[in-house]
Amino acid sequence: MNKEETICAIATGRGGALGIIRVSGPNAIINTDKIFIPADKTHKLLSERKAYTISYGHITNKDGEIIDEVLVSLFRAPHSYTGENCTEISCHGSEYILKQIMQMLIDNGCRAANPGEFTQRAFLNGKMDLSQAEAVADLIASSSKATHRIAMNQMRGNFSHELKTLRDKLLHLTSLIELELDFSDHEDLEFADRKELKETSLQISTVISKLINSFSLGNAIKNGIPVAIIGETNAGKSTLLNTLSGDDRAIVSDIDGTTRDVIEDTININGTTFRFIDTAGIRETHDTIEAMGIERSFKALNKAEIVILMYDLQRKDNFLDFYEKIHQHLINKQVILAMNKCDIVPESNIKIPEIIKISSNIHWHTITISAKSGTNIEQLRNMLCELSCILETSNNDIIITNVRHYEALTKALNAINRVEYGLTTSLTGDLIAQDLRECLFHLNDILGEVTTGEILHNIFKHFCIGK
Amino acid sequence: MNKEETICAIATGRGGALGIIRVSGPNAIINTDKIFIPADKTHKLLSERKAYTISYGHITNKDGEIIDEVLVSLFRAPHSYTGENCTEISCHGSEYILKQIMQMLIDNGCRAANPGEFTQRAFLNGKMDLSQAEAVADLIASSSKATHRIAMNQMRGNFSHELKTLRDKLLHLTSLIELELDFSDHEDLEFADRKELKETSLQISTVISKLINSFSLGNAIKNGIPVAIIGETNAGKSTLLNTLSGDDRAIVSDIDGTTRDVIEDTININGTTFRFIDTAGIRETHDTIEAMGIERSFKALNKAEIVILMYDLQRKDNFLDFYEKIHQHLINKQVILAMNKCDIVPESNIKIPEIIKISSNIHWHTITISAKSGTNIEQLRNMLCELSCILETSNNDIIITNVRHYEALTKALNAINRVEYGLTTSLTGDLIAQDLRECLFHLNDILGEVTTGEILHNIFKHFCIGK
Repeated sequence: MNKEETICAIATGRGGALGIIRVSGPNAIINTDKIFIPADKTHKLLSERKAYTISYGHITNKDGEIIDEVLVSLFRAPHSYTGENCTEISCHGSEYILKQIMQMLIDNGCRAANPGEFTQRAFLNGKMDLSQAEAVADLIASSSKATHRIAMNQMRGNFSHELKTLRDKLLHLTSLIELELDFSDHEDLEFADRKELKETSLQISTVISKLINSFSLGNAIKNGIPVAIIGETNAGKSTLLNTLSGDDRAIVSDIDGTTRDVIEDTININGTTFRFIDTAGIRETHDTIEAMGIERSFKALNKAEIVILMYDLQRKDNFLDFYEKIHQHLINKQVILAMNKCDIVPESNIKIPEIIKISSNIHWHTITISAKSGTNIEQLRNMLCELSCILETSNNDIIITNVRHYEALTKALNAINRVEYGLTTSLTGDLIAQDLRECLFHLNDILGEVTTGEILHNIFKHFCIGK
Repeated sequence: MNKEETICAIATGRGGALGIIRVSGPNAIINTDKIFIPADKTHKLLSERKAYTISYGHITNKDGEIIDEVLVSLFRAPHSYTGENCTEISCHGSEYILKQIMQMLIDNGCRAANPGEFTQRAFLNGKMDLSQAEAVADLIASSSKATHRIAMNQMRGNFSHELKTLRDKLLHLTSLIELELDFSDHEDLEFADRKELKETSLQISTVISKLINSFSLGNAIKNGIPVAIIGETNAGKSTLLNTLSGDDRAIVSDIDGTTRDVIEDTININGTTFRFIDTAGIRETHDTIEAMGIERSFKALNKAEIVILMYDLQRKDNFLDFYEKIHQHLINKQVILAMNKCDIVPESNIKIPEIIKISSNIHWHTITISAKSGTNIEQLRNMLCELSCILETSNNDIIITNVRHYEALTKALNAINRVEYGLTTSLTGDLIAQDLRECLFHLNDILGEVTTGEILHNIFKHFCIGK
C-alpha cells in the first residue's frame, strides 16, 4: 500500500436519498478542489477552509456541466478517521451521479480504494490497533444488541487494553529472567523470585484461558445462541418451535462459524439471534439409548448454551426415565423446564417434578406454557432473552469472536504454559525467556505490532469498499 | 403536515460502510443534543456550535452504552436543504446502529419522516418551487447522462425560469386587457393594441407548444430512446441486435411511461438507454403489404426516434421495393443506413443506393457493417450515442418528462389558444381576461403556487424516505 496515493470510494449503500464519496490521502483536499465549486460568497478553495467545516457547492465536469449540488465535509491530517487529509462529498443518491464523481476524482489523480483501505490506513497511521480495526467490520455487520456490544467494546479498545496489560506483565517477567541471565556466571544465583514468577505466569495464563473460552460464546452470539429443545416424542417440541418463530421466523441461509450444526430454525427475538439445534436423536431413542447417532445428538446438546426441556404435564410418568438419560448433559447449562400443555391439565396437576429439585449444578428456570394455544410464549421469549444477557455478562467482559485472535491466543497460551512448566522444573532462564518472547509475539500479533502485507490483505479483503 | 414537528429518517441505502440519519425541524439540534456527547475538549452542546460545522462524538443510550462513534453535521434555519434546523448523523452503516439511533431520536421527540418529506418541507419553506422539488426524485433516479441532465436542469430551475417568463408575459397581457375593462364604458376604446396582444399570445402559445412537444422525447429519454431496426428478412436484424447488446445486454423489466411498446431489448450504450422496438410486422410482410398488423408496426416505426435501416449488400435487388413501402415513415427521422455483410462482399460492391441520395426530408447517416463478424459495430454504437445527443439538443433546451407538467401545459395551451381566438374574433375583454387567468392558473399549478395537501401527497409519496 502506498500512502502517497489518494484514494476514493462510494461509502454508502445503493438506493438511498443521499450518497457519500470518501476521499483520503495527501491530495484529498487538493483533488476535491479540482472538481468542486463552492457556492458561497467567499469563493475560498477547500484548501483555504477550516477543518471540520461543511461547504455547499457544485461538482462540475470538464465541459462545465453541473453534475450535482453537494456538501463537502473537510478533515485535515491527523484529525480524521484515516489520520490523513480527507473529504466526504455528500451528493444525491443517484448511481449515475456517484459514478460520475468517482470518475472525475480518478481523472484528477485519485485511485479507487480497495475494500477496507480507509480502515487499513487508520491502522497504519496509528489511529487504532489491528484488533480495533478488525472490529470495525464486525460493527458494520452487527445485527443484534449482543454482536453490536462485542464489536463496539473491541473497537473502543477494551480487548486491546486487556492484551496490553498482559504484555506489560510479560515484559516485566522477561526483564527479571533476563537480568538473571546476565549474571548467569554466578552459579545458583536466582535474582528473580521463582515463586513470584510462577504466580505472575499463572495469572497470565488464567486471563488468556478466559479469553480463549469466551470464543465459543462469542461465536454463538455472532451466529446465534444455540438452543436445544429436548423432550420425548409428542412433548410439543415442534409445536413450540413453530409458535416461537411466529412472524419473526427467519431462516438464515448463510451462517459461518466453527460451531455449525444441523439447524432447524434461526429466530430473532428482540434483536438477539437464537439457533435452534436439531436434537431429534435424543427425542426418538429414549428406549434404545444405545442406538447409532445418539452421540451426535448429545454433542449437539453439549454445544447448546440454553436448553429447553419439555415436560409433558399429561404424561408425567415417562419423564423420570427420559431425564436420567440426559441429565448429565445439562450440568452447568441454563435449562428452562417448560411444563407444556398447561391449558388442558387441571391447575392442581401443575407441579415441578421432584427430581428437578434435587438436581444441582444445573441452572434451572421453570415456566408453564401451552405451545399449542400460545399461553406464556411471550414470557418464554423474554426468558430466552434474559438468559442470553446472563450468558453474555456472566462469562466475560471481553468476548472474542475472531478466529485469528482465537488462534493467536491459543499459541500464546501454549507458550505461557511452557513458561510455567519451565519455572516448576527449574529450566534455565534462557529457555524460559524464549517462551516468554513467543507468548509476547502472539499477543503483539493480535494488536498488529508486526504485520506483513499478506496478513493485512487477508484481514481487510473481507471489509466493504468505502470503509 | 405540521412544520412544528421535527422529523428524522435514514437517508442512505442499505449495506454501505457509512449510514446517514437526517433530522429536520425546529427541535432538530436540541433533540440531537439529547443523544449526542461531543468528544472534543470544549464539551459544547451542538446548540452552542456554529452552523456548517462537523462535531465528532458518541451516541449514547439511556443506560450509558455507546451505540456508535459518529460525526454530526449542523445546519441552521434557513440555511439548510429544508430551510429548517437540521442535523445529519453519520454513523457506521450497521442496520442495528441505524435503527437504534432512529429509535432514540423518536424517543426524544422526533417523528419518522414520510417519503419525500424533507423535499416537501424545502418546497413549503420556499427553498424551491414544486417543479424543482419534483426534479429531486428524478435526479436520484437518473441513470444516464440524458436523464441526469434533464433532471438537473429542472432542479436548477431552468424550467421554472421559462414558466416565470411566460407568466410575466401573461400578467402583462392581462393587465392591458383589464385596463381596457376598467374603461369599458367608453365604447370602442381599445387601450391595448390588439395586434401587439395577438403577437404576445402567439409567442406564449409557441413556447408552451414547444414544451408540450418535448414531452415525447423527454419520455423517450427517461425510458430509453426508441430505435427501430428495419429491413427485409435475413437482412441481419436479429444478428445486429444480438451483436449490439453484447455484454451490455440489459433487459429492463419495469419501464413505465406513455410510449410503451413491444420491446425486444433495452441496451445501455455509454450511459444512454436505447429501446429497440419490435417492427417484425414490416420485415415479414414485404410482399403482403396489406396484411393485418402492418398498421401497428408502422405505428411502432413512427414512434421511433432513430431508425436503423438494414441494407443487405448481398441482395440489393429487393431493396427498392422494400424502401418504397416504408420511406414515407422515415420522413424527419434520424435514419442510419446500415450496409450489412460488408465482410463477404467485394469492396467495389459497397455503394450507397441511388434512391437514398434523392430521398430528402430524411436525416441520413450511413455506415458499412458486418453484424455477424462485428465489423464497425463500435462505430455504430457511437453513432447511436451521437444521434441521441442531436435529439436532445436539437429539440429543446428544456425537456419535460413529468405527466403532471404535460397535463397542466396542455390545459394552459388550450386557454391561450382561446385567447388568440378571442383576440381574432374581437371577443370582449372580460372573456379574454378569464382565459388568460386560466392559462396563468395552470402555469402556477406546475410551480406549486397554489397547492392542496392531496396534490402534495400524490407528488411526494413516490419519493424515497430520507429525501
